[in-house]
Amino acid sequence: MTKGITQRAVGETVDEFLLIKQSVKGVTTTGNPFISLVLQDKSGDIEAKLWDTKDEQEKIFAAETIVRVGGEIHNYRGKNQLRIKSIRPAKPEENQSISDLMPSSEKSTDELLEEVMKYLFEMENPQIQRITRFMLKKYQQQFLTFPAATRNHHDYVSGLADHVVSMLKLGKALVEIYPGLNKDLLFAGIILHDIGKVIELSGPIATTYTVEGNLIGHISIMVTEVAKAAEELEIEGEEVMLLQHIILSHHGKEEWGSPKKPMLKEAEILHYIDNIDAKMMMLDRVLGKTKEGEFSERVFALDNRSFYKPKI
Amino acid sequence: MTKGITQRAVGETVDEFLLIKQSVKGVTTTGNPFISLVLQDKSGDIEAKLWDTKDEQEKIFAAETIVRVGGEIHNYRGKNQLRIKSIRPAKPEENQSISDLMPSSEKSTDELLEEVMKYLFEMENPQIQRITRFMLKKYQQQFLTFPAATRNHHDYVSGLADHVVSMLKLGKALVEIYPGLNKDLLFAGIILHDIGKVIELSGPIATTYTVEGNLIGHISIMVTEVAKAAEELEIEGEEVMLLQHIILSHHGKEEWGSPKKPMLKEAEILHYIDNIDAKMMMLDRVLGKTKEGEFSERVFALDNRSFYKPKI
Amino acid sequence: MTKGITQRAVGETVDEFLLIKQSVKGVTTTGNPFISLVLQDKSGDIEAKLWDTKDEQEKIFAAETIVRVGGEIHNYRGKNQLRIKSIRPAKPEENQSISDLMPSSEKSTDELLEEVMKYLFEMENPQIQRITRFMLKKYQQQFLTFPAATRNHHDYVSGLADHVVSMLKLGKALVEIYPGLNKDLLFAGIILHDIGKVIELSGPIATTYTVEGNLIGHISIMVTEVAKAAEELEIEGEEVMLLQHIILSHHGKEEWGSPKKPMLKEAEILHYIDNIDAKMMMLDRVLGKTKEGEFSERVFALDNRSFYKPKI
Amino acid sequence: MTKGITQRAVGETVDEFLLIKQSVKGVTTTGNPFISLVLQDKSGDIEAKLWDTKDEQEKIFAAETIVRVGGEIHNYRGKNQLRIKSIRPAKPEENQSISDLMPSSEKSTDELLEEVMKYLFEMENPQIQRITRFMLKKYQQQFLTFPAATRNHHDYVSGLADHVVSMLKLGKALVEIYPGLNKDLLFAGIILHDIGKVIELSGPIATTYTVEGNLIGHISIMVTEVAKAAEELEIEGEEVMLLQHIILSHHGKEEWGSPKKPMLKEAEILHYIDNIDAKMMMLDRVLGKTKEGEFSERVFALDNRSFYKPKI
Amino acid sequence: MTKGITQRAVGETVDEFLLIKQSVKGVTTTGNPFISLVLQDKSGDIEAKLWDTKDEQEKIFAAETIVRVGGEIHNYRGKNQLRIKSIRPAKPEENQSISDLMPSSEKSTDELLEEVMKYLFEMENPQIQRITRFMLKKYQQQFLTFPAATRNHHDYVSGLADHVVSMLKLGKALVEIYPGLNKDLLFAGIILHDIGKVIELSGPIATTYTVEGNLIGHISIMVTEVAKAAEELEIEGEEVMLLQHIILSHHGKEEWGSPKKPMLKEAEILHYIDNIDAKMMMLDRVLGKTKEGEFSERVFALDNRSFYKPKI
Amino acid sequence: MTKGITQRAVGETVDEFLLIKQSVKGVTTTGNPFISLVLQDKSGDIEAKLWDTKDEQEKIFAAETIVRVGGEIHNYRGKNQLRIKSIRPAKPEENQSISDLMPSSEKSTDELLEEVMKYLFEMENPQIQRITRFMLKKYQQQFLTFPAATRNHHDYVSGLADHVVSMLKLGKALVEIYPGLNKDLLFAGIILHDIGKVIELSGPIATTYTVEGNLIGHISIMVTEVAKAAEELEIEGEEVMLLQHIILSHHGKEEWGSPKKPMLKEAEILHYIDNIDAKMMMLDRVLGKTKEGEFSERVFALDNRSFYKPKI
Repeated sequence: MTKGITQRAVGETVDEFLLIKQSVKGVTTTGNPFISLVLQDKSGDIEAKLWDTKDEQEKIFAAETIVRVGGEIHNYRGKNQLRIKSIRPAKPEENQSISDLMPSSEKSTDELLEEVMKYLFEMENPQIQRITRFMLKKYQQQFLTFPAATRNHHDYVSGLADHVVSMLKLGKALVEIYPGLNKDLLFAGIILHDIGKVIELSGPIATTYTVEGNLIGHISIMVTEVAKAAEELEIEGEEVMLLQHIILSHHGKEEWGSPKKPMLKEAEILHYIDNIDAKMMMLDRVLGKTKEGEFSERVFALDNRSFYKPKI
Repeated sequence: MTKGITQRAVGETVDEFLLIKQSVKGVTTTGNPFISLVLQDKSGDIEAKLWDTKDEQEKIFAAETIVRVGGEIHNYRGKNQLRIKSIRPAKPEENQSISDLMPSSEKSTDELLEEVMKYLFEMENPQIQRITRFMLKKYQQQFLTFPAATRNHHDYVSGLADHVVSMLKLGKALVEIYPGLNKDLLFAGIILHDIGKVIELSGPIATTYTVEGNLIGHISIMVTEVAKAAEELEIEGEEVMLLQHIILSHHGKEEWGSPKKPMLKEAEILHYIDNIDAKMMMLDRVLGKTKEGEFSERVFALDNRSFYKPKI
Repeated sequence: MTKGITQRAVGETVDEFLLIKQSVKGVTTTGNPFISLVLQDKSGDIEAKLWDTKDEQEKIFAAETIVRVGGEIHNYRGKNQLRIKSIRPAKPEENQSISDLMPSSEKSTDELLEEVMKYLFEMENPQIQRITRFMLKKYQQQFLTFPAATRNHHDYVSGLADHVVSMLKLGKALVEIYPGLNKDLLFAGIILHDIGKVIELSGPIATTYTVEGNLIGHISIMVTEVAKAAEELEIEGEEVMLLQHIILSHHGKEEWGSPKKPMLKEAEILHYIDNIDAKMMMLDRVLGKTKEGEFSERVFALDNRSFYKPKI
Repeated sequence: MTKGITQRAVGETVDEFLLIKQSVKGVTTTGNPFISLVLQDKSGDIEAKLWDTKDEQEKIFAAETIVRVGGEIHNYRGKNQLRIKSIRPAKPEENQSISDLMPSSEKSTDELLEEVMKYLFEMENPQIQRITRFMLKKYQQQFLTFPAATRNHHDYVSGLADHVVSMLKLGKALVEIYPGLNKDLLFAGIILHDIGKVIELSGPIATTYTVEGNLIGHISIMVTEVAKAAEELEIEGEEVMLLQHIILSHHGKEEWGSPKKPMLKEAEILHYIDNIDAKMMMLDRVLGKTKEGEFSERVFALDNRSFYKPKI
Repeated sequence: MTKGITQRAVGETVDEFLLIKQSVKGVTTTGNPFISLVLQDKSGDIEAKLWDTKDEQEKIFAAETIVRVGGEIHNYRGKNQLRIKSIRPAKPEENQSISDLMPSSEKSTDELLEEVMKYLFEMENPQIQRITRFMLKKYQQQFLTFPAATRNHHDYVSGLADHVVSMLKLGKALVEIYPGLNKDLLFAGIILHDIGKVIELSGPIATTYTVEGNLIGHISIMVTEVAKAAEELEIEGEEVMLLQHIILSHHGKEEWGSPKKPMLKEAEILHYIDNIDAKMMMLDRVLGKTKEGEFSERVFALDNRSFYKPKI
Repeated sequence: MTKGITQRAVGETVDEFLLIKQSVKGVTTTGNPFISLVLQDKSGDIEAKLWDTKDEQEKIFAAETIVRVGGEIHNYRGKNQLRIKSIRPAKPEENQSISDLMPSSEKSTDELLEEVMKYLFEMENPQIQRITRFMLKKYQQQFLTFPAATRNHHDYVSGLADHVVSMLKLGKALVEIYPGLNKDLLFAGIILHDIGKVIELSGPIATTYTVEGNLIGHISIMVTEVAKAAEELEIEGEEVMLLQHIILSHHGKEEWGSPKKPMLKEAEILHYIDNIDAKMMMLDRVLGKTKEGEFSERVFALDNRSFYKPKI
């Protein structure tokens, strides 16, 4: 299997199909138009520039277009870039598919769904189980394909489900070590906490925030969704309120966007599980690009820290 | 008309009906039981102690009981207290009513409703008007009688409606000075922003936070209520989202409990109107107890500041 | 009437008189000299570059020079720029005046003065009125022409007086809603609070901070001015101290440059009025450049927020 | 088995042996001497007062003395206290042992040691294993009996080892979910991170901070200890530095007492494991004292939050 | 010479003249009136209570009265108190003088003045010297007798001048080590920076804040005074502005009450000198009450830290 | 003597030997390789660019190479740069030495050592003196040649010793003004506090942080070194702990990297001395580049402040 675009060394030549993830028109300081592209394949993405462009090229090389690109990898301010020598849109007869060119979970959506269902079946409280099942079903297709974020971690096709599955495993381990935890609340909380992202974000490709995502946010969106589900399922009782609380407090603090701090044991723990899973992915990703005995580039989302990769 | 309990000077004697607002059992450092009472009439409340109490007295002198109290005003650590010399529950034939002994708005609920409706009728956007009218109707009775808070400001019967009416006046003045403001969004936002308090708080008497109030909060409660109202009224379109945003951002910052900062002009301004009206009440209240040429007691909710009352 | 320079679309050609607001010499990464200009007319300002410049051009195209410019609007990093094709200083016989090319209040200085005097006449306390009148008279010409700031809001000719008039209207509305406010202190505070800017800033054109502005600041400058005025007018009594306090606390908090937090009701409210008027201008300005259904550019002075312009 | 002293209801009588954990002399506001005692048995501790005491009583009822106490449970400001009716030191012939009257781990020190050794044997890197084994051996007795803190969590005999064992379990679960973690660094870090507490704290009974604990702290103490161990074992290489880094960064942030933020993946994760284990104990403890459907008392070490105990 | 009131051990008897520094009426929890006194002699002050007091006693034992007190030292919550057994006002024929009973500088006002003048004579810039001399002369008597604060440090008769003299010595040492410092600005800044305290505070005895002190503050008061002095002396030029800047920035940061941060080298250094001198006094004072090998009580003004007194 | 490279005016030509302090390869936005050089002589350093470079040039013009450079000074974004016209490595027969081209202390290492020894001899406590002497001897050569930092202040050859000597002078002045200070602790603390830098930093030329410097830091390195020294010298007693505390607390606050706040009088004062000496150097350096009557460039390490250089 050939190496992905992010795995090439400086100086290697490139001649392959790539997907335009982002296309932004610019003007140089001296007034010449150019297009700044982000090109991607399964392995991730890379920046590239098209110089002295014409207006029609903007339309041809728009986001979500598959292109055939020839060029060479070079280094610009510490990061790899692709110097384009030739570029053209893929032809229909070349049979390229967008999904083959997007980073995505290593698991299929079927596998992901099966994993999540396993935890759903472990729940014992029927109200919690019903609400969770209802929400999963209502947004099943998006839940299985959306990313969990636009960048930093789980920012790829099925990233949201990947994140949830990983959190569920961690949740299960904690329930075994600390048997006082309410398994149903914890598992349901994990499954539901980020489903609002399927409304907050635009979709799996070229992901951006929707207007509703910006103005309302996935937390308030989901609190409302749970209320509506309960009404439709005619469920009353504390369970609805507890799930709403776990969702709305999962960012842990008001200044991080939760209108209430966690006031349930399971809400507090879910916040930690969420954090650990996000951090593990960011750490693995940045250390994957770092040589042994050296420090990584700084990671903004981890307090701008640089991490050391040991030689042992 | 006789002076209220909060207007008496140190040394004055008291012999009148008062309402027990709060009743908490305590034990002195040497192990003797006592009851700490908060007694109120129209003018506000005052603390008092019953020493060497018996178990049955706890039941007799519970919150929401009307009592006949004889005693004297004295000063304890800079605040007035009532030294009880005699106390007994009011008799049925004395015809005392709780509402005569509770601080409340100077306006009747009818007047308050009429004032609010005036602004409702000024609205031009039918969706905004319908949602607002629906919510007002659904919670009309509570909206007109609940306080806006448990303490600090508008913490009396009909305090919520009083606060809203005052904010509406200020909103109208601002619309006249800054005609770019959307009157409908601003007025609807003012009317709706705190209605969630009727679920967050327990009621007009001896007000406390409900479990739902603590775990979900009036902001998220109201965002959900607006979503349900829109569904029931079959209203779609940006209006619903805009009203939800104004409600959820009205505390102004994440650390003050808003999951999103204001991102609409009207949301930003509503936050200021809310603040000014609350501060004016706190300032008027504390300066009302201060002599000219002196500094007031410190006000915790105003950064613990002390305010000067000029002699001019 | 022709469209102002800030109202042109990308691609439109330009051929008109403009005023050089700022002129800064630079060198490209490869060592070639250029001049970075900010050009303005009534509508606002726009950036432009002169490439491969000679030393003598620096003198010709200095700040406060009127020039005839030919060129075209293009977009550079999300903001409009003017690509200069021809530029020359205006000739004396072309009779261009600087004031015709500077953004300024929509009201004349006479109108502004008249408005302010209206509020002065409403004052009842003679000491407060005399001090206010004295200060207005001493700095009348500057008060009527200075901006209130170098950027963000009211940063144009007569911006200071515009800001004061708008605040006075808001002050009057508040006095009507909250009759406990002392009208004299509030109006005088509004008129005086920023007059120190006429010493802090360099003037209405190409405004910068003076050395005294940087080292002492408009707040301390004005506190001193009021003390001197009182001495000259032989006014004694609390009024002087109260006005000084309102001036020195009007930024609201120590970390925002006020050596004392507001400790008078009117000082607290003046701080809010000041804030609202500044924010309304910033919001109107940024939303004026935003399309309906979209988010504005980020506004640094509003916590770097981006605002949504509704479609309704 | 009889109920422990912390499990008695208000009004129950007491007649049993208790250990004096703390004894502080005081004077009432009116000048009468008294002794404030903290008395404990296996279940935890309770406050009690001795009134009108004489000087010799201070010596008799000093900390670490076993006493026979008769009395009754009453409630003082929301917390249970013991009202003493009779008190005398235990007689030698009564054969009371201090260790029977102190809260301690449910596991024996042998069990705890065995658990920790299991993880030691799993280590593959010989340097890391040798340093860890050396430190464990050097401080084995204290490591197995010291608390992890003076209060809040794991503040009992063998609390330190309990905390470490629980963290090791959690560490193992994480290594299974995230195989990229270096098991040796993580396990060794967990075992070593708090051993400095055996110098920072005074011992398992009536635990206080030592002078060295206050001035140097367990973090710096342990960094030095690891350096000395490496010197003695003649171990060179990165392992020493990595273990030192994990120890010194385990509080996660400078403001929490770590001179460096975590810069190793395992250091970052250890900080989370430490936090989760401490929080689980605090949450279980406070909710153990809370009724279903109610909120707990506020927990200072958890941002002063109050937690809800669900009814489900 | 007899030991001062602050140097007595617990249990010692007292029979001597003391000055009432503070007298506050209180009521016990059970409603009995008492007076809380702060009594002082040269060595400092101590608390004492008068129980079951009558109204007339309030007048007799008011602040600034000299009394003859008999009693005994006891310890209340870690601090010494005086248990009063007898108390009566001093008789005229007993010839007690207030100044003999107040802590004050060890130097006479003549010595202090002489020291300050020495630095005045070292100044070379005539404008700076003239302004400084003018201010010293205008407030000479108060400058030489006022304290520098109401508590924490230099809170005694002539404390202000003591503080200034000590700072001048430190300033001179710095000028010798760092010859780039402008001696005139530094010495004048030190002499002037706190003179505003003579208006901010009420006087050397029973010191409190004046209304002007609270509303304007010593910083703004002094900036205005310097402006008036310059006007009177007809001094123009940068010196006036530089001195004003040094005064207004001497708290170092906006949040500590300086409307501007230091922007002159000498202003920056003066802030450090001020800090060091205040801290040295607080440290010496608290360690003077601490035994070797022990930690001091916590000092609120030093981040609530506790300091260790070494045995070496 | 010729002017140093940092003292040339824009437009002056250059033809001399310079040392390459830093050499970083780059690529222009259009993909052309270049080398960014930092060149230095005794007076400081200057930036320069080599355009369109080949791979072999990277090796020739590496850091720590002496080169002969011809060119001209120009100004780029407010800072001087050197436009290179010719460049070649120095030839062996040209006898250039690296140390002649590096900024360094004005004092020789012998002078610096002699100064430090003077204070060592003043110490009276033999344990403190022995530990200090031991550490000085162990790292004498590095202590005398290392910088105290990579930038901001004392960032040149022998900067560390320069900083220590200056601090010792200030320490001596303070001991004279405040005789309660323990001279031995203060002098030893000053000498030892930053010696850990000789392990934290890479050396006097082209100084960077070592891996150990990043992961452990000079504070923890030195605390460990003192412990080892004490062991080797068989010194026991409080002195070791006190010196360790002074070292580990010298940054003053946890958030500035000290695991403990100062809890000794001498530790508190050392923190201030350290600060003053660093600030004096930064202030002198930035004001040395500023014209009278103007404001300096902003200094990031001084809260990003700009400082005014008076005309007097």
